[in-house]
Amino acid sequence: MIKVRTSTVIDAPIEAVWALASDFNGLPAWHPAAAESHIEAGKANNEIGCVRNFALKDGSGRVRETLLAASSIDHTIIYDMVGGPLPFLDYVSVLRFEPVTDGDRTFAVWTAEFRAGDGEPDKWGPFVRDEVFLGGLKALERTVKAR
Amino acid sequence: MIKVRTSTVIDAPIEAVWALASDFNGLPAWHPAAAESHIEAGKANNEIGCVRNFALKDGSGRVRETLLAASSIDHTIIYDMVGGPLPFLDYVSVLRFEPVTDGDRTFAVWTAEFRAGDGEPDKWGPFVRDEVFLGGLKALERTVKAR
Amino acid sequence: MIKVRTSTVIDAPIEAVWALASDFNGLPAWHPAAAESHIEAGKANNEIGCVRNFALKDGSGRVRETLLAASSIDHTIIYDMVGGPLPFLDYVSVLRFEPVTDGDRTFAVWTAEFRAGDGEPDKWGPFVRDEVFLGGLKALERTVKAR
Amino acid sequence: MIKVRTSTVIDAPIEAVWALASDFNGLPAWHPAAAESHIEAGKANNEIGCVRNFALKDGSGRVRETLLAASSIDHTIIYDMVGGPLPFLDYVSVLRFEPVTDGDRTFAVWTAEFRAGDGEPDKWGPFVRDEVFLGGLKALERTVKAR
Repeated sequence: MIKVRTSTVIDAPIEAVWALASDFNGLPAWHPAAAESHIEAGKANNEIGCVRNFALKDGSGRVRETLLAASSIDHTIIYDMVGGPLPFLDYVSVLRFEPVTDGDRTFAVWTAEFRAGDGEPDKWGPFVRDEVFLGGLKALERTVKAR
Repeated sequence: MIKVRTSTVIDAPIEAVWALASDFNGLPAWHPAAAESHIEAGKANNEIGCVRNFALKDGSGRVRETLLAASSIDHTIIYDMVGGPLPFLDYVSVLRFEPVTDGDRTFAVWTAEFRAGDGEPDKWGPFVRDEVFLGGLKALERTVKAR
Repeated sequence: MIKVRTSTVIDAPIEAVWALASDFNGLPAWHPAAAESHIEAGKANNEIGCVRNFALKDGSGRVRETLLAASSIDHTIIYDMVGGPLPFLDYVSVLRFEPVTDGDRTFAVWTAEFRAGDGEPDKWGPFVRDEVFLGGLKALERTVKAR
Repeated sequence: MIKVRTSTVIDAPIEAVWALASDFNGLPAWHPAAAESHIEAGKANNEIGCVRNFALKDGSGRVRETLLAASSIDHTIIYDMVGGPLPFLDYVSVLRFEPVTDGDRTFAVWTAEFRAGDGEPDKWGPFVRDEVFLGGLKALERTVKAR
């Protein structure tokens, strides 16, 4: 099992960060890898069990992920990956925020556990940690500050 | 602050219990105090932030509660009370289930924290703990087993 | 990674259960597999970081485990295995109790994550779950009730 | 109930921060308000249930606090106050750290819940939050960096 954990500090209040990051169907508004996204038929956005279906900007395909848990108290969402071009198995991810009262900033943690279906765990762990998660959180910060 | 905690063991598998209890708009299907329920305009059922609005069977009025968190991993929902005939302030409640592998049963915990706006905490703590929560969990068990 | 989870209900109050189970050096008082136990030099029992060293009754050797976390609020201990005859790698275990207010009983959960160093995960998962954990919790209940 | 929460980011690796902060009897090494400290008779330092007894530098008396929980996995300690010159009732505090991988820093959170026995909650909440907790964490950072 590959275990990945990225954490950083976003120089913006948690309310502004959470407004963007809690929108399960809203990845294209801030994540550099995500293009168009929609919720699959039969569910509403942010409903537990809904599936987001978004295009990757590099044209490699579409990713499908299920919302497993969400908390506006703990500023946390948990989701798994159920389809797409990445060779990941049993992928579950947690995105969590906490206020940093000293400076009105936001502590952000993004973790995942998964197996690499192509037998290349040494490649995919750092890719998720650095490209998808740290790159995503940095872009989230830029987007929040530009609003 | 009044703190209330009720826990029991339901003699049914967690999947069956959770199917009923995770339906935020579905209280009338199992809770003895709830009559008709609907989700207020603009949200879907089980969407974080949605408000359920249900009638009390005793005719005393309608209760309005917001879904703050839900997890299909931890089998937990968290909600607060934002309106109704009960004199409660700052009411937040957690309903949580865990599998009991020995016997394929379900451990159920229902907690709340609130203040009594009418100055009668000694009355309302036991009422919530015994009538609303323990009575509700016993009715949930009966409903699950009757299906 | 092998993931094991056993849970049951002990027909005794949590105070009595926790008094026995929270004694990190006290396994021989209730677990059928444990004979003599001591804390290794330089630490006190129940000090975070202490190592218990206990003999297995079947004569196969001694197990060494480190106390990583303990909470008298959440009635939880977490420990890892750092030596002994069992072919386990990266073994971390959580033992947790919660009161069942309905009947003054105790919900008990014992989990572990580990890898099998001998390549026999299908053998060791059920062994830990059924023999070590469920057998242990049943013996804990008998011991508490006999006092 | 007064609820206080202070969080900041310490510019040092979590291992160095935790080495200091996890030593329950070690407050005088870093907290500006603490002078001499010892563990009361019959327990070892860092043993769950031990009581630290430390002098306040302002000469107002000695504070006694019990270690309720500690986790070297979650980098957390929980304790309550059982004696001293401060007019606090039902005081329970949590001190927790998480790694900030981006920059090898440490997120620190210090919370407390208590009642003011002298009827001055508006005085004591900010005092604990700003003087005891934020002041303490800033001093912890200085101490770690000076080593």
